[in-house]
Amino acid sequence: MDNSKIKVAVLGATGLVGQRFVSLLADHPWFEIAALTASARSAGRPYGVAAGWVLGGNVPRSAAAIVISPGAAASLFEKGIRIAFSALPAAVALAIEAELREAGLAVFSNASAHRMDPDVPILIPEANAAHLELARGQVERHGGFIVANSNCTTSGLVLPLKALEPFGIRTVVVTSYQAITGAGRRGLPAFDIAANVIPHIGNEEDKLARETVKILGRSAGGAIEPAPFEVNASCARVSVRDGHLLSLALELEREVGAAEARRACEAFRGIPQELMLPTAPEAPLLVRPEDDRPQPVLDVEAGRPERARGMAVTVGRIRRSGRFLNMFALVHNTVRGAAGTSVLSAELAVRKGFVARRGGADSNLRETKP
Amino acid sequence: MDNSKIKVAVLGATGLVGQRFVSLLADHPWFEIAALTASARSAGRPYGVAAGWVLGGNVPRSAAAIVISPGAAASLFEKGIRIAFSALPAAVALAIEAELREAGLAVFSNASAHRMDPDVPILIPEANAAHLELARGQVERHGGFIVANSNCTTSGLVLPLKALEPFGIRTVVVTSYQAITGAGRRGLPAFDIAANVIPHIGNEEDKLARETVKILGRSAGGAIEPAPFEVNASCARVSVRDGHLLSLALELEREVGAAEARRACEAFRGIPQELMLPTAPEAPLLVRPEDDRPQPVLDVEAGRPERARGMAVTVGRIRRSGRFLNMFALVHNTVRGAAGTSVLSAELAVRKGFVARRGGADSNLRETKP
Amino acid sequence: MDNSKIKVAVLGATGLVGQRFVSLLADHPWFEIAALTASARSAGRPYGVAAGWVLGGNVPRSAAAIVISPGAAASLFEKGIRIAFSALPAAVALAIEAELREAGLAVFSNASAHRMDPDVPILIPEANAAHLELARGQVERHGGFIVANSNCTTSGLVLPLKALEPFGIRTVVVTSYQAITGAGRRGLPAFDIAANVIPHIGNEEDKLARETVKILGRSAGGAIEPAPFEVNASCARVSVRDGHLLSLALELEREVGAAEARRACEAFRGIPQELMLPTAPEAPLLVRPEDDRPQPVLDVEAGRPERARGMAVTVGRIRRSGRFLNMFALVHNTVRGAAGTSVLSAELAVRKGFVARRGGADSNLRETKP
Amino acid sequence: MDNSKIKVAVLGATGLVGQRFVSLLADHPWFEIAALTASARSAGRPYGVAAGWVLGGNVPRSAAAIVISPGAAASLFEKGIRIAFSALPAAVALAIEAELREAGLAVFSNASAHRMDPDVPILIPEANAAHLELARGQVERHGGFIVANSNCTTSGLVLPLKALEPFGIRTVVVTSYQAITGAGRRGLPAFDIAANVIPHIGNEEDKLARETVKILGRSAGGAIEPAPFEVNASCARVSVRDGHLLSLALELEREVGAAEARRACEAFRGIPQELMLPTAPEAPLLVRPEDDRPQPVLDVEAGRPERARGMAVTVGRIRRSGRFLNMFALVHNTVRGAAGTSVLSAELAVRKGFVARRGGADSNLRETKP
Repeated sequence: MDNSKIKVAVLGATGLVGQRFVSLLADHPWFEIAALTASARSAGRPYGVAAGWVLGGNVPRSAAAIVISPGAAASLFEKGIRIAFSALPAAVALAIEAELREAGLAVFSNASAHRMDPDVPILIPEANAAHLELARGQVERHGGFIVANSNCTTSGLVLPLKALEPFGIRTVVVTSYQAITGAGRRGLPAFDIAANVIPHIGNEEDKLARETVKILGRSAGGAIEPAPFEVNASCARVSVRDGHLLSLALELEREVGAAEARRACEAFRGIPQELMLPTAPEAPLLVRPEDDRPQPVLDVEAGRPERARGMAVTVGRIRRSGRFLNMFALVHNTVRGAAGTSVLSAELAVRKGFVARRGGADSNLRETKP
Repeated sequence: MDNSKIKVAVLGATGLVGQRFVSLLADHPWFEIAALTASARSAGRPYGVAAGWVLGGNVPRSAAAIVISPGAAASLFEKGIRIAFSALPAAVALAIEAELREAGLAVFSNASAHRMDPDVPILIPEANAAHLELARGQVERHGGFIVANSNCTTSGLVLPLKALEPFGIRTVVVTSYQAITGAGRRGLPAFDIAANVIPHIGNEEDKLARETVKILGRSAGGAIEPAPFEVNASCARVSVRDGHLLSLALELEREVGAAEARRACEAFRGIPQELMLPTAPEAPLLVRPEDDRPQPVLDVEAGRPERARGMAVTVGRIRRSGRFLNMFALVHNTVRGAAGTSVLSAELAVRKGFVARRGGADSNLRETKP
Repeated sequence: MDNSKIKVAVLGATGLVGQRFVSLLADHPWFEIAALTASARSAGRPYGVAAGWVLGGNVPRSAAAIVISPGAAASLFEKGIRIAFSALPAAVALAIEAELREAGLAVFSNASAHRMDPDVPILIPEANAAHLELARGQVERHGGFIVANSNCTTSGLVLPLKALEPFGIRTVVVTSYQAITGAGRRGLPAFDIAANVIPHIGNEEDKLARETVKILGRSAGGAIEPAPFEVNASCARVSVRDGHLLSLALELEREVGAAEARRACEAFRGIPQELMLPTAPEAPLLVRPEDDRPQPVLDVEAGRPERARGMAVTVGRIRRSGRFLNMFALVHNTVRGAAGTSVLSAELAVRKGFVARRGGADSNLRETKP
Repeated sequence: MDNSKIKVAVLGATGLVGQRFVSLLADHPWFEIAALTASARSAGRPYGVAAGWVLGGNVPRSAAAIVISPGAAASLFEKGIRIAFSALPAAVALAIEAELREAGLAVFSNASAHRMDPDVPILIPEANAAHLELARGQVERHGGFIVANSNCTTSGLVLPLKALEPFGIRTVVVTSYQAITGAGRRGLPAFDIAANVIPHIGNEEDKLARETVKILGRSAGGAIEPAPFEVNASCARVSVRDGHLLSLALELEREVGAAEARRACEAFRGIPQELMLPTAPEAPLLVRPEDDRPQPVLDVEAGRPERARGMAVTVGRIRRSGRFLNMFALVHNTVRGAAGTSVLSAELAVRKGFVARRGGADSNLRETKP
């Protein structure tokens, strides 16, 4: 135990996103895993045994010996844990995350349960760091706060859109090629997807449309006014392990050429880069010059330095065609699209003073007065 | 040899599309394969041995014993062959197809070589049967004529667009998920596509845009005036064997709802259905009601009766989203997208009198006076 | 309803094997589907709606309108049904199949529940038609009888072994490449198998060893004496849709060469071929001469005539290497390896008089006195 | 340029194995890439541009700027290069490697060209480090020497066999599930292998048999006497990117149980571990306890420390069945099965004095007098 680090919990630690959280947090410079929770089936067993680790290699040593707990809010708080990373299924996330917030924790959640709550920001720190301010109202009402992740696909759309925002976004037509890991470890039968494409992912198109305009909207008076453009989304599953590829056709207010759009993507940086947060990639967008990239197999792990692998969205084939600007974008759906962005958001929250760097056993977030 | 049948040749008969031609023609009620051509490597060997048949089952008996010939135009004509189906690679198709036309043959080609010639129709008989009239001018100038197939992907786009044409098409944004058979038997290394998506198919997006507006254009004065709407295309290869899936976002002049669009697709019929051509599917569009269809593995062989398997384009998930009408469409890329449409076009040409049903050895198309 | 046909039921009709049963029986010359059963979730709904048909095309018309029933034994018998084809999961098959047998039905089962019962034959009619005699004892004790299918993989092993039996089998080393459909529709998560191999299939190796020596054993005194050779099995799952491929290394008593072994396979015929049963393939083994066959994608549907598609096991690369005879064999796991063999067994039972061709409503099998 | 490092060349540097060499050597503690060669098409262009890098991430910086040379033997020697790593195709390797040897270089080759030469060792340093002595004779006759790699599959077989050698090997029945990267970048059409298994890899079975008994043979009098057991091999290609999986059925002289065999594998170490060579994995065999491992996707990169990723062979499902000991083994085909073992062999050769650590420009291997 390193007392200079902030104690964190990972909720739902055995699923795919839970394992990503553990992987990203195992050797984190600011955070230290103090609790791992999972369903009753796994509780009481060491994580190294119960995880069924699937990320390659072995369970990180710092996590292997942790005994999985059922993870009641009070008990986490008593252990000095001030941050909970949630990879819970939506069904149980609603109540548990709210309970943790009431107990004074900062919850960084990958579940969709609270995403559309008016006072919960969907944070992609390079795109809308300012929305973190919404947490303040939550702290006042609840003691703690919830920060949501976007849907995995949304993050791959928002980062290029943010880079192009100065040109004025009018219409977004987005079509996805989504990896099987987006459905979780057991969510998709092999029979359905082998050598196939499934042109349907439940609610994904709605989420993509709604979340994008919320994230790129304006925060005012404790709420978000959605951005005023239309997102037309079509989502399909393909037989790829990791990485959601998106095809974009954009109508912009300024008739920008491909070269200018490319430069805007290359030059794009956000608050996390400015603050040099540990999990921030040097550049949030990586622009490939080849005419057949990005490709999931080759580009999904883009992002430097090592700690930010999978945190850069790769864009390519930026081109002008008639009144549209077209491009492809690739996002690592369980890193940038899930666990990675939650960790980055938590880093931002710490830097912005929303979480005390060293909480005494009896401090809660209300007292840290961000 | 059945003298009541029209003798035909298949050029480039050993490739994937060539094999599809052989499969569709092997037992055709009007046509009889009288010659098969292939590259020098295969010439002189029986088709049954040299084909390297990959369509499942065995080479059709009627084709297996045919000795592959180099296929010079004059020799085909002398054998009484009046129709050539071309699955030649674009590079050699340009000259050979022109030569065959000069020799008085009707060439139904899957190559892109002559597609954009002003007097060559790109024929999808359900969409633009009237364009066959362009063949008349060719016959006068050359003795024979060339009818081109569209690109495989284009056929999957044109049929739904034709059904929706009455609502007024303004803008088409189309994104593709294309099967590996679209690249031919040896065109795509396994290393590149295994568990991957490649967001690039050479010239495909241009072809899709240009061909669509030519096919849906107006034939006037021996040329085609392209249809006046914009096609914005993004094409990618996925790890699927057969079947190109398309995601469409359409702006229409009339703000049509999903139910009305669905009915228009279901009711859509063309000239081939009216004429009951042998290879015409009962309905060119099949509308699936499920929320996760069409899927390549389940729907690629749509089309009744048996002879028309793979000739129906399946559409699904027709939905209204903001100012766009969205849907997915699936086309069998080597049947409806290639060999099947060529055969259907040849049937139309025969019924319309462009090819004599029983050519004497010295008749050519000029004398059949369509 | 065709009164000259034998009424049959399919139990567990919505799963993959259940759908195969329906497909094979939909247009059967002797049998007619009179009842379809499934889990409570589907009961009461028409099969066409509840099946979630995945075999391509549409649900056969003759089955689509049948309302799925819960399928109690008594009610089936009262409907005049004398044969039940079971695609039930092993867990429920044990009791239900026994109950049906007590009610006087002939049960042809794809479940493993009763396979190792001493008086239940595992029937592969080309290999051990004589074992059907075991049914006689069951009829006396229970009124009806159960005939089991082998495990899907076993059938691909037994047929080549039977052809080579005259050379004396000493040792069988068999290694499998099994398709995902072997795990059922939802049995295998895509995440586990995509671009992967899983070297483990629960109990498969044991089943393969035990069932093979039972099937090729001698029937004597109402029981089977297992064949006296060793089967060493290693089983793995690969990312293929249909078709289990097996690699065999055989020690034979006679040191037979590849050519002789090939001839033995080509010449092999069984009782079903002799009796010209409807679902019997012309030849149970198809020997490919190419050096890279059999392949699942190209050969899985081997078998003529049309009704016997998927019923022939394809073997290839027969070669002598040191003291072993080697070959590869491919079996369609849900046709020859499951539903198809059950149907063939039922045909054999009918021809052998174990099932009355036209049962009056009050006849049961005991009275048919086979 | 770091003068304390040994200058090396990579021949055929743009292929898959060539890229692996570059990746392993880019940051090597003893070696420094001083030349990269490729076909005429690439020569003269910087490696970073011409490589078409496919290993993920970017071309290592130290290699990106190197201009690809045609790589004549004399010119390499003049540049002070004393070691050549060859990823040349077999056809050109024969002459070029011999020429380099005559020029005094040590050639560590992944090509099969010289593998079966009596005085060329096939080196897998954990299994037959002593065979390196064969190089001495070559140096005397030619000035330089060639050390061959085994075939990629052989390395996955030899390491477990070496661990079990003390129990006496009688018969090896090996069946493979080989990855597409084994065929090189463009060697295998996607059409052939997608969702398929191909039960044939040219000459692979012969190589596996011959190489295994050579490697495990006894070196005596400047030649190798093959090990006296039979290897019966069946090889097939599956749709996996990296990692050859092998199923083994072994007859051993001592009837060893699974637990003892497992301990022998776990305890197995070789000379590279003893000498702590840079690319040696801590343990050459990794034994997985789970009942469904090794799996290509999860285990292919086994090997610690970081530099030895992909150098450990993973074994699992060790079990006794009748007179056979069975197990599965997985080898990274382009690391342990190709470039990695060559680098390890070169490290061994340096440590054993076969290559001068700091060759002056005019020294050759004959003068280093190993």
